[in-house]
Amino acid sequence: MSIRVIEQVRAMQAWADKVRREGKRIGLVPTMGCLHEGHLSLIRLARKRTDVVVVSIFVNPTQFGPTEDFEKYPRTFDRDQELVEQAGGEIIFAPGVEEMYPPGFDTSVTVARLTKGLCGASRPGHFRGVTTVVTKLLCAAKPHVAVFGQKDFQQAAVIRRMVRDLNLDVEIVTAPIVREADGLAMSSRNAYLSPKERRDARVLFQSLEKGEKMVRDGEREASEIIAAMKTEIEAKPAARIDYVAVVDAETLEPVTHLKGRALVALAVWIGKTRLIDNVVLEEK
Amino acid sequence: MSIRVIEQVRAMQAWADKVRREGKRIGLVPTMGCLHEGHLSLIRLARKRTDVVVVSIFVNPTQFGPTEDFEKYPRTFDRDQELVEQAGGEIIFAPGVEEMYPPGFDTSVTVARLTKGLCGASRPGHFRGVTTVVTKLLCAAKPHVAVFGQKDFQQAAVIRRMVRDLNLDVEIVTAPIVREADGLAMSSRNAYLSPKERRDARVLFQSLEKGEKMVRDGEREASEIIAAMKTEIEAKPAARIDYVAVVDAETLEPVTHLKGRALVALAVWIGKTRLIDNVVLEEK
Repeated sequence: MSIRVIEQVRAMQAWADKVRREGKRIGLVPTMGCLHEGHLSLIRLARKRTDVVVVSIFVNPTQFGPTEDFEKYPRTFDRDQELVEQAGGEIIFAPGVEEMYPPGFDTSVTVARLTKGLCGASRPGHFRGVTTVVTKLLCAAKPHVAVFGQKDFQQAAVIRRMVRDLNLDVEIVTAPIVREADGLAMSSRNAYLSPKERRDARVLFQSLEKGEKMVRDGEREASEIIAAMKTEIEAKPAARIDYVAVVDAETLEPVTHLKGRALVALAVWIGKTRLIDNVVLEEK
Repeated sequence: MSIRVIEQVRAMQAWADKVRREGKRIGLVPTMGCLHEGHLSLIRLARKRTDVVVVSIFVNPTQFGPTEDFEKYPRTFDRDQELVEQAGGEIIFAPGVEEMYPPGFDTSVTVARLTKGLCGASRPGHFRGVTTVVTKLLCAAKPHVAVFGQKDFQQAAVIRRMVRDLNLDVEIVTAPIVREADGLAMSSRNAYLSPKERRDARVLFQSLEKGEKMVRDGEREASEIIAAMKTEIEAKPAARIDYVAVVDAETLEPVTHLKGRALVALAVWIGKTRLIDNVVLEEK
């Protein structure tokens, strides 16, 4: 059976209503396409938790800043279709920009405090674009479960808060980061890297490992951990730090002295490509 | 059969899921309680269009400004229950403030341009409170149809836009203004008026009738209509004008020369009570 592509919101809702009436559970994996093994792990997880999986593919213009890479963001629709099918997806929801943002579009969904720091500080308006489009995707596909990757840790936290706050009746599930053999977190944006940059990009994960080891060895001062990670990153010529942060994994507020569940998160420019990664540290 | 009161979002959603699986259509009438004949007309209309009607009763703190009447807003729950039952409602959804806004609440829904003028200009943050709570109520009660009164014309327009923009799968229906014998639009806030103020409050409808008559007699300049209406209102000692406006009924943008479907809308303080009213003029 070949995968079905739905491009209209109304048709997506009609499909979801029908499936729900049949008593089946719907999973949704929202993506911007250019699928890699990370996305496929989300689709497989959704498939385990539900009966039918919708993968949305929509490069959402409103979550890109004016100087960001919306135009050049990689589009690989034919290949994506094959991968979704292989991973067990049943429907691709691929609306056009006009379908999602018709003339007169005037509404936004905002999560305030959780989007103040980390990527929210570097990318003004980004999370408003994300929360608005995810609300729309949830209302279109009407899933019981939606799956997001932990690489975008702040995004997952923000969406979880939004879903709770707006009473959206969907369970948000997160799945672990999938990494290349050398530790680099999988990302559609890795395709932008030159061979030299690709090698330097390993420093994101290496610095996280360094931070993790420091904590294992007893370090508890966030400033010490951040300083050591920054030194490691700055040694790479192609790397420019956006942020390195240690925050509470629930509130995303900076912590000075580690306790409880902390997130070490970073964003680093490798040449013209901005990459992110993170690790969660559990206090034993 | 006595009416059922549901206070928890989860219980409301479970009820809605069950009713939907039975193939029944759900109607929702969102209110702040203190029900009057206007609300009852909405419930009856919802009942005509659907199989089971939920009336939500929630005095939403976030749509009141800091100097507004949240604390003293009339609460008449026992009487409301009887009235809902008589009008054909089946469920009252009456969540507490903590249920709707749990600790850490951080999300808002905003409609931008449509909320700039009219009541949006006089009541900063009001419509953000309304759109956020209505999204929550729609996600809790999962109605097929939600009914709003035309007295809050801008509110209905804003909600219609929000529902379209967010892909909320619900039909928004509006119902005509219900008036007292002397023309005063029904409102829970009419209860605030002293006998003297109650008499002066008739000027809202009287001035709208004057504007309507001017248009019927050929007047097309909005400034002329507004000036005549203001003169009429200002003749009442207890009245203080918030706004008198002539706007396009779709965009809610001011019009200078009447054509197409126009809205004449006003907000007037009668003593310490702010009342609103409007009339839609259709160009023949």
